[in-house]
Amino acid sequence: MMGLMMDRPLLTTEILKHAVRNFRNTEIVTRTVEGPIHRYTIADSAKRIARLANALSDLGVKKGDRVGVIGWNTFRQFELYYAVGGLGAILHTVNPRLGPENAAFVINHAEDAFLFYDTTFSPLVAALKPHLKSVRYYCALTDSDHAEQAGEGVEIYEDIIKTGDENFDWPDFDENTAVAMCYTSGTTGDPKGVLYSHRALVLQSFAACLPTAMSLKEGDTLLPVVPMFHVNAWNTPYSSMMIGIKQVFPGPRLDGEGLYELLDSEKVTYCAGVPTVWLGLLQYLEKTGKELPYLRMGMSGGSALPEALIRGFAKYDVELQQGWGMTEMSPIGTVNTLPPFVRALPFDERIPYQLKAGRALPFVDMRIIGPDGNKLPHDGVSDGNLQVRGPWIIDQYFKTDSPTLTQDGWFDTGDVAIIDEDGFLQITDRSKDVIKTGGEWVSSIDIENAALSHPGVAQAGVIGVHHPKWQERPLLIIVKKEGQDPTAEDIREFVKTKLDKIAWPDAVEFVDEIPLGATGKVLKTELRKIFKGYELSS
Amino acid sequence: MMGLMMDRPLLTTEILKHAVRNFRNTEIVTRTVEGPIHRYTIADSAKRIARLANALSDLGVKKGDRVGVIGWNTFRQFELYYAVGGLGAILHTVNPRLGPENAAFVINHAEDAFLFYDTTFSPLVAALKPHLKSVRYYCALTDSDHAEQAGEGVEIYEDIIKTGDENFDWPDFDENTAVAMCYTSGTTGDPKGVLYSHRALVLQSFAACLPTAMSLKEGDTLLPVVPMFHVNAWNTPYSSMMIGIKQVFPGPRLDGEGLYELLDSEKVTYCAGVPTVWLGLLQYLEKTGKELPYLRMGMSGGSALPEALIRGFAKYDVELQQGWGMTEMSPIGTVNTLPPFVRALPFDERIPYQLKAGRALPFVDMRIIGPDGNKLPHDGVSDGNLQVRGPWIIDQYFKTDSPTLTQDGWFDTGDVAIIDEDGFLQITDRSKDVIKTGGEWVSSIDIENAALSHPGVAQAGVIGVHHPKWQERPLLIIVKKEGQDPTAEDIREFVKTKLDKIAWPDAVEFVDEIPLGATGKVLKTELRKIFKGYELSS
Repeated sequence: MMGLMMDRPLLTTEILKHAVRNFRNTEIVTRTVEGPIHRYTIADSAKRIARLANALSDLGVKKGDRVGVIGWNTFRQFELYYAVGGLGAILHTVNPRLGPENAAFVINHAEDAFLFYDTTFSPLVAALKPHLKSVRYYCALTDSDHAEQAGEGVEIYEDIIKTGDENFDWPDFDENTAVAMCYTSGTTGDPKGVLYSHRALVLQSFAACLPTAMSLKEGDTLLPVVPMFHVNAWNTPYSSMMIGIKQVFPGPRLDGEGLYELLDSEKVTYCAGVPTVWLGLLQYLEKTGKELPYLRMGMSGGSALPEALIRGFAKYDVELQQGWGMTEMSPIGTVNTLPPFVRALPFDERIPYQLKAGRALPFVDMRIIGPDGNKLPHDGVSDGNLQVRGPWIIDQYFKTDSPTLTQDGWFDTGDVAIIDEDGFLQITDRSKDVIKTGGEWVSSIDIENAALSHPGVAQAGVIGVHHPKWQERPLLIIVKKEGQDPTAEDIREFVKTKLDKIAWPDAVEFVDEIPLGATGKVLKTELRKIFKGYELSS
Repeated sequence: MMGLMMDRPLLTTEILKHAVRNFRNTEIVTRTVEGPIHRYTIADSAKRIARLANALSDLGVKKGDRVGVIGWNTFRQFELYYAVGGLGAILHTVNPRLGPENAAFVINHAEDAFLFYDTTFSPLVAALKPHLKSVRYYCALTDSDHAEQAGEGVEIYEDIIKTGDENFDWPDFDENTAVAMCYTSGTTGDPKGVLYSHRALVLQSFAACLPTAMSLKEGDTLLPVVPMFHVNAWNTPYSSMMIGIKQVFPGPRLDGEGLYELLDSEKVTYCAGVPTVWLGLLQYLEKTGKELPYLRMGMSGGSALPEALIRGFAKYDVELQQGWGMTEMSPIGTVNTLPPFVRALPFDERIPYQLKAGRALPFVDMRIIGPDGNKLPHDGVSDGNLQVRGPWIIDQYFKTDSPTLTQDGWFDTGDVAIIDEDGFLQITDRSKDVIKTGGEWVSSIDIENAALSHPGVAQAGVIGVHHPKWQERPLLIIVKKEGQDPTAEDIREFVKTKLDKIAWPDAVEFVDEIPLGATGKVLKTELRKIFKGYELSS
C-alpha cells in the first residue's frame, strides 16, 4: 500500500527558494577574477539567478541541454549552478587542469551547446575553439569593462543579465532529471562523465548538513577552496544554502597568502580544500608568524590527510577533518566528524581516528570485498576492495555501454579499505597501487604517510618495483623540504620506527618534483614511468 | 535528460542500518510500564527489531497490513516502528486519549489486523474487543512475569521475540510505500487517517536534523515526552537514529516529578513536549527548588508556547524553542531555532521571535491566502489562511473521496498566520477561532497569551460571543492559579496593557476547569457549548 503524501520533487531550485525565505541577508563574497572583492546577499543572488535564467531561456537553453563552464569559484559560477539546473538543463563543469586535449574531449563528449568561462581561460578557450564540435555560444564571465580580456566575438555575462525580470517561474519536473555533470580526472584512459540528478544532489546536501557530517551551522562562514569545477565543490554551493552559511569564493588566488587574506578579512570559520592547499596555508603561517583567530574547522579531502597537517593546524586551534568521496559519489561518502567518545580522548589518542576517512553518511552503503570475492567483516582489521551503493552514487557513466557496477549493483571504488566496528573507514590504498609482496598486501599510502612525518620531507610517493624473491617491494621516492638535506639512510631508519617490517621500503630515491594529478594526488602512473626497470640494489 | 545515479529507495530501515554501523553503543533507556528502568544499546535494539520482524513474518504480517499499537513511549513501541515498517507493513499508532468510541472507530477504519498494547490499556482493549472487526491477533507489550495484566487469551511480546534469528534480510521496495498511519484528533467529525510513506518520514528526518531545525547533535540525550502515538513523536524515533542521539523513553509517567527524575538521572540535554508538559515541569521545579543542570534545550509544539514558560525556563538556563506542524505534515513544518541575528539580541528582544513558530524546513512551501483568495506578501503584517505544500505533507486522507487539497494542490492548514521577511511563521489563530469583529480579525490566541502572563492565571481560553453592534466580541475565560484570587477587573486591566484596543476582551468569566483536547489544546468547541447564548452585559 502506498502512502498518501504529496508527490513533490527534490529539485535544487527548492534549496534556493528556501535560502531566500530564511537567510535573505546572508552574504556571498567573491574575490573576483578582475581583482576587487564582490559582495552581495542571498536575496541579491536570487534576483540575478532569475535574470540569468530568463537570459538563458531567451538564448534557447532547453531542458537537457549541456551548458559548459570553465571557471573559478565566484558568484557568477554559483549563479550558473542554480540557473542552469533550475531550467532542467545540465551544467557541465570543466576542469581546466585536465589540459587542453582532455578539455576538448570532455566538451565534445558532453556535447556542450553553450560555454561560459572566466577570462583567465580566454587563451585556453581560443585554442580549444577550432576543436569544439557542439558549442554554438561562448560567453565570458566578466563585465564590459573587461571585454578585451574575453576574446573575439563572445558575449559578456554582465551584459546578458543586465536587464530582464528579477523573477523566474521555476518549473517543476522529475527529480531524477540531470542537473550537473563532471568528468573523472582518470589517470588512465579517456575521462568518463558522471551525470548528477537533482535528487542525488538534494539528498547529499541534506546528508552533508547533518551535525554528524560536515558539522557546519548557521552563522558559519565557509571558504570553499575546493573548486566548483571539481565535483560541485563538494556540494557546498547547495549545502551552504540549505542552512544559511555565508560563502566566500576565492576566485583564482589559491596560494597561502591569498587564502589567508580572505580567511582573515571575512572572518572565515570553516574552510574546505585538498591537503596541498592546507600545506600551502600552513607554510604561509609558519613563515609569517600569522594566526587564525576565526577559523575553527577545516575539511580536507581528495587525498589522505597527513598527520603533520593535523598537528600543524591544531597549534592554531583549527581542527582538520577528513572527508572521502569520489566524482562518482556526487562526491561525499564519509566525513570524519569526531563522535563524543573520540572527542573525550586526549589529543594524541584522537589522532589515529582523525587519520581515518570518517563515517559514512546515511544511505551510503559500504562493503569490503576480499580477494576471494567474499564480504569481509567491519572489524577494523580486514581489508579488501571498497564497494558502495546509495542514491547519490553513479549507476552508469555517460554514453558508455560497458557496465559501471558489479553484477549485484554496487560501485567498486578502486580503493582498498578497512572499516571498523564504529563505522570508521580507513582507505589503505588504491587497489592498483597496493604493493603485492610475497602473498601479502602492503599499503603504499602508509609508507608515504610515515615518510611525510619526517621533518626533512616535503613530498613522498611509493611504488612497487620488481623483486626477484618477493615479486614486488616498495620504493620510496622523496622530495626534500627546502633547506633540508636528509640522506636515504636517515629516512629509511625514520620510517622503520613507524611501520611493520613488511612495509619497510627497500630503497629511497630523491627527485626534485613528484608529478601530481589535477586534484593534488601523487600520479603513481608517472612515477612508474620514471622508475621503469628500476632494480633494487640488494 | 535523466541523471545516471543509482535508484536506491529512501526506506526507514536504512536509518536503522546507519545507526547500527555508526552509533552502535548509543543507549536507549526506558522507564517501563512495569516500573524498572530498561537500558540497551542501538546494536541491541537492532537485534531485537530483527527478531520482531522474523516473528511478525511468521505470524503472517505482510506488505500493506496494518498493525495497530496502543502504547507509551517505550523501547518496545520503538521496535515496532522499525520492524513493522521494515516489512513494508504499516504501523497504526492509536491515541488512547481519543476515548474508546474513537479508538474503535480508527482501528476499524484502518482495518488493523494485529493489535499491540501496553498493559495499562488492557481494560480499554478488553472493552474494545467486541467492537473490533478486523483484528485477528492481540499481543501485550510485556513479559511473561506480567502476563496476568495482559488480559485473557493474548500473546506476550517478550515471548514471541524470545527466540529467532537476530538478523533479518530487510527487503527493498518503493519508497512511496506506506510505513505508518495516524488519525487526526479532530475536534469535530470522525477522526481522519493520514498515511505516511517511507519517503516522507526519511526526508523529514533529514530536514529535522539540520542545525537550522531541531538543533540536536550527536552526544545529546533526548527525552521525547511527545507520545509515539501522536504523529510519530514528532519523528524523533527516526531523527534520533539518523545522528546518534541517546533516547530516553518516559513510559507512562509524564508528570513533573516523573520527568524530572529521568532528566536528572539520565542527564537529558534535550526534551520535547507540549506546553502542558512544560508547565507541569516548571511547577514541579518551583515547588521543589530543584535545578536542571543537564538540560540545554526544550522543544515545544502542539499549541502556542506562552511567554511565561520561555521566561520560566530561562531562569534554569534552558532555552525553549517552538515547533509547528500537523498530523497532516508528518508532522513538522517549522522549528524556531534562533538565527545568529536574533541570538545576538538582548534576552528581552529575543522573546518576540521566540513566541513565533519558527522558520520552515527546506521543501516546506508556505503561502498566506487573504480573504479574497489572493496570495499575501510575507511582510510580517499581512495575515490570512496558511497553506502548505511539500514531500511530507498529505495528499489525501485515507479512504476518502472528497478532495483533501485546494484545487491547485496545496493543503489548507486551518491556521491563520503571518510570515515575516526572515521566514518566521506566526500562527495568529485557528481560522475557525478568529474573532470577526466589525470587519476586522482578532486573534483569540493573542488574548489568551496576554492573560496567561498574569501571575494569577493558570489557564485561559477565548471565544467570540455575539455582540449587537460588532457581530462578535471576545470573551475571556479563566482558571485561577491555586491560592490566587484575581478579579475580572484585575485581569481586564492587565491584558489591556498588552493588547491593541480592538482585542480587549469585553468580559472575563471564571471556571474551575477548561476542557483540553488529546494534545493539550483548549477545546474551543466545548467552551462554546458551555457559554452558548452568553450575553455581553455592556
